[in-house]
Amino acid sequence: MRPGSTIRRSILVVDQGQVRRRRDTLATEEPLEIRLLAGSGVERRTLAVTMRTPGNDFELAAGFLYGEGVITQRETIAQISYCIDTTDEQRYNIVNVLLNSASLPDLPQLERHFFSTSACGVCGKAGLEALHMRGQPLLTSGPIVASTLLTSLPGLLHQSQGLFRTTGGLHAAALFTAEGNLLAVREDIGRHNAVDKLIGWALMERLFPLRNTILLVSGRAGFEIAQKCIAAGIPILCAVSAPSSLAVQLAQDFGLTLIGFLRGERFNLYTGEERLGEYVSA
Amino acid sequence: MRPGSTIRRSILVVDQGQVRRRRDTLATEEPLEIRLLAGSGVERRTLAVTMRTPGNDFELAAGFLYGEGVITQRETIAQISYCIDTTDEQRYNIVNVLLNSASLPDLPQLERHFFSTSACGVCGKAGLEALHMRGQPLLTSGPIVASTLLTSLPGLLHQSQGLFRTTGGLHAAALFTAEGNLLAVREDIGRHNAVDKLIGWALMERLFPLRNTILLVSGRAGFEIAQKCIAAGIPILCAVSAPSSLAVQLAQDFGLTLIGFLRGERFNLYTGEERLGEYVSA
Repeated sequence: MRPGSTIRRSILVVDQGQVRRRRDTLATEEPLEIRLLAGSGVERRTLAVTMRTPGNDFELAAGFLYGEGVITQRETIAQISYCIDTTDEQRYNIVNVLLNSASLPDLPQLERHFFSTSACGVCGKAGLEALHMRGQPLLTSGPIVASTLLTSLPGLLHQSQGLFRTTGGLHAAALFTAEGNLLAVREDIGRHNAVDKLIGWALMERLFPLRNTILLVSGRAGFEIAQKCIAAGIPILCAVSAPSSLAVQLAQDFGLTLIGFLRGERFNLYTGEERLGEYVSA
Repeated sequence: MRPGSTIRRSILVVDQGQVRRRRDTLATEEPLEIRLLAGSGVERRTLAVTMRTPGNDFELAAGFLYGEGVITQRETIAQISYCIDTTDEQRYNIVNVLLNSASLPDLPQLERHFFSTSACGVCGKAGLEALHMRGQPLLTSGPIVASTLLTSLPGLLHQSQGLFRTTGGLHAAALFTAEGNLLAVREDIGRHNAVDKLIGWALMERLFPLRNTILLVSGRAGFEIAQKCIAAGIPILCAVSAPSSLAVQLAQDFGLTLIGFLRGERFNLYTGEERLGEYVSA
């Protein structure tokens, strides 16, 4: 059976020492295994297992591969499907991504990049540096937006965020046009997964490049969120909560406009002030 | 230079369209490479690179190794130190854990467990099942606590959570006695790291077993948080926010008392009601 995004369960609610039983809705968390196939499926390899909320799994796989640099364009993907080698309950927890190529990319190298840096030289310095993106172009252009447009975004996200209202347990990522129109919202128990689903959606819908869009995340903006945003060419990243030091450094290095604590009518702008209307016109 | 837990930075604050510049404090995010050494250092291998907030790095390494089952007791660790093979700025981003053994554990197997499940059989079923803990004893005993004790914990955590107040960007994990006395708080930009630091602290302080303690996390309780809690033998896990479906399932399977949405005078109890005073006496 295909897992849903939520499950129902009987729980105890305790309030001021009073105990009562009621039905509650939980966000589903299940492992998703992403497998890469090439040569019409002859070559295959597991790339990652991520804990995720079921739903938009193909987008998640596409976005993950794009964010990690395994694919750089939509055309590399021939097909994405659930695993057909099994009939059991794990069937919907395994996604096969078939590439338009005769052989798999250099996966030992990829594996080091994803999972370990054990072969990266003395004291892992190269490994640590490899966490930065290589060969990624700077975000040199992009829209100039007014603060009122930016402060309107969390409300638009909230209106569309269905599962969170039910479970209180999900992160959301939303993509907007530079005019503040909502393009899509994706939710997941994992912050990175929500962004991967969203960017995977845009990739599969052939909406790239995303030069005139804004990414909003419901939580914090750490290094990896900033990295995914830059890799997708999105020039403005807004977070409802705090950014990390390394996210700010990366944003600075790559020309990303990074906004945090976007709540009510205020926000903090950490980098990329050249895209803020009030600053440019001042 | 040893990185601090926070950094200061000039930002723009935008409020109702008014722009002003001010100094802000950010939570530091830096990669930490955990290396395992054996045979007095002859054998060495990088086990993981995790993005973390600097501080309590040795505890983080110890807790990570314990949570992943690489070590099962304090005595296995001979020494934990920063890397001495380099003098550059990455020195404090690499932790060497020297084991009291002539050779490293079976790391190829570990590596699959941590980083990939590529060798785990048809459609990764075994890999998915491997996410569950094997051989872990059930939490069959543990204290019975009153709801008023549980609702007092977030306030005690908040009083001790220093960095969060400064940056708004950190997760916290706290360990309490069954009488509600705070034993320790650890903070990190990563939720799992905060728990690893806390459990690593308890391990290094030789406080195991933790049968009469309560773990409180400031955010959500997903599968991995529940797994770390069970592995450390802590019978009660409280989260300020929502648990995931798989965390609840794991808690049920292993006898963990799992509490979510612990706020004010109320909370939800998902599993392990036999440790709730009001339920037992009703």
